[in-house]
Amino acid sequence: MRATTIHGTRDIRVSEVADPAISAPTDAIVKIVAGCICGSDLWPYRGENDITPGDTIGHECVGVVEEVGAEVTSFRPGDFVIVPFDHCDNTCVHCQAGAQSGCVNLGFTQSGQAEYALVTQAEGSLVKTDGMPDEALIPSLLTLADVFPTGYHAAVSAQVRPGGTAVVVGDGAVGLFGVLSASLLGAETIIAMSRHEPRQEIARAFGATDIVAERDKAAVEAVMEITDGVGADAVLECVGTDQSMQTAFRVARPGSMVGMVGAPHGIELPLRRMFTQNIGLHGGMAPTRKYIPELLERVLAGGIDPGRVFDLTVSLDDVAEGYRAMDERRAIKVLVRP
Amino acid sequence: MRATTIHGTRDIRVSEVADPAISAPTDAIVKIVAGCICGSDLWPYRGENDITPGDTIGHECVGVVEEVGAEVTSFRPGDFVIVPFDHCDNTCVHCQAGAQSGCVNLGFTQSGQAEYALVTQAEGSLVKTDGMPDEALIPSLLTLADVFPTGYHAAVSAQVRPGGTAVVVGDGAVGLFGVLSASLLGAETIIAMSRHEPRQEIARAFGATDIVAERDKAAVEAVMEITDGVGADAVLECVGTDQSMQTAFRVARPGSMVGMVGAPHGIELPLRRMFTQNIGLHGGMAPTRKYIPELLERVLAGGIDPGRVFDLTVSLDDVAEGYRAMDERRAIKVLVRP
Repeated sequence: MRATTIHGTRDIRVSEVADPAISAPTDAIVKIVAGCICGSDLWPYRGENDITPGDTIGHECVGVVEEVGAEVTSFRPGDFVIVPFDHCDNTCVHCQAGAQSGCVNLGFTQSGQAEYALVTQAEGSLVKTDGMPDEALIPSLLTLADVFPTGYHAAVSAQVRPGGTAVVVGDGAVGLFGVLSASLLGAETIIAMSRHEPRQEIARAFGATDIVAERDKAAVEAVMEITDGVGADAVLECVGTDQSMQTAFRVARPGSMVGMVGAPHGIELPLRRMFTQNIGLHGGMAPTRKYIPELLERVLAGGIDPGRVFDLTVSLDDVAEGYRAMDERRAIKVLVRP
Repeated sequence: MRATTIHGTRDIRVSEVADPAISAPTDAIVKIVAGCICGSDLWPYRGENDITPGDTIGHECVGVVEEVGAEVTSFRPGDFVIVPFDHCDNTCVHCQAGAQSGCVNLGFTQSGQAEYALVTQAEGSLVKTDGMPDEALIPSLLTLADVFPTGYHAAVSAQVRPGGTAVVVGDGAVGLFGVLSASLLGAETIIAMSRHEPRQEIARAFGATDIVAERDKAAVEAVMEITDGVGADAVLECVGTDQSMQTAFRVARPGSMVGMVGAPHGIELPLRRMFTQNIGLHGGMAPTRKYIPELLERVLAGGIDPGRVFDLTVSLDDVAEGYRAMDERRAIKVLVRP
């Protein structure tokens, strides 16, 4: 099949690779209808993470079941499915406790920007729609593979509560879904930190009541002014850099929680402040499968348009241009059509 | 008055210092009936924290109100009171949110091992008993000034829930109260990490169902065996060293929370594990005043004997011996009689 592969820093290609094949009875093969590029794909793209040249890249996709292993009984070829980027059996002790990203049979989508993807633990992982969805709904459904549940996990981990104040650090797609999720969870004041007009616009559409374009100290001061000097009840850290994490802890009020979903890079946690101010940190890799059913219901009910984060669509052939556009922040999130 | 003062590493003296005096209308002076030595007093004692030679030391006490400022209306001379080590107005926006240790008017007991203590924000901070308590109850009431609420804060921060499994790292007095608190909050399996027989005995009396005497890797393996390979639902970190914190995160199951109450010293948080396993960290300096009423009720109801952690009582004159005994782990916790 044709798949996106990474060969070095800023070296993305489309290569012919072996078709994924069923090797365990829990596997399924999905023919990808739409994939996309994740902010976390930019880490290896930028040379910040180690890679093996020639490896496939991409972990977000939706598609149609092509083939299933013997133990996959709830899905059959032809089903339209959302593929959570982290696969889980959804039955183990950790899954039962709602920690699906700690599943004892954890797996990952390895070729989300390609023609086909292998899903390990298909029975536990996949979520299907009733019949084939409208074409117009595909982008919104695609967000359920990772970015929407990840933003939602930030909000849940930060313990966003109805009527409270939430600050979202980061205006990437995850941050924008943090805004939407804080809104879905009932936050009354949602402060989005963003200095990019198109992202600010989506943030507002997703429920942000305030935009803070400043950074660092000035950003903290702006949040403190909006919150009458109190700080935020909940902070969603949706970047993963030291700068964003420090900002997150500085705007968090005593006793509150920072919800973390940005893969951490070079962070030194402000432990002294965490201790004296009782500001906690929770979150991590999202238990995607846990959230998909409720978020799918929200998507199908209408009233929200998560798919609008995709401001660029490329064919698989042009996937490298998609990476460039995201790397240069010309695009918020790029949809890839195989 | 006579007060305990610190002059250098392992140099504790009893000195004549100025009597505390009312300087704000929110102040009160308490004549100390009993004080005690805190594990955190050992940090400066051992030279790990900076000190100013001659400063008073000690922050845990109970006593009788001697004098109150003009704005203190709920207490009068003669009232027996528990003095939370961290003083708060109990009315500010942070106190109302249950984060009393982040009070905008935060203060601290500065001379808990002395004849008198000044309480700033007396109206919000003090909790009185109905009349003078029985002499036999004094040690248990004294635990409410810090060590019991601090252990309780570890359990609350770790989100101990009925029927769950809690691991308590640290067998100092705070750790023992972590055990008792996990028990009060309904944990079914309580694993105390302790290698000291007298502490193990109290841990069992406080509700520990299992004792792990091993350390580091062996301790982690022991917990994993007890929990059928799952790990703990809640972990109480009651020490504050890097070794104890690493152990705490290693025994925590995916999605769980480490409750931190040991003042952190030289800790490097395992952020990668926290992220991939969704193990959070919450806690810090305890909002003592928040917990005192419910814990006082428990103490007065009987059935628990928190005062038994005091295995050595010294007169104020002999306070230096009390420090030595705790430093050398000959005593778990030392009560000081002025």
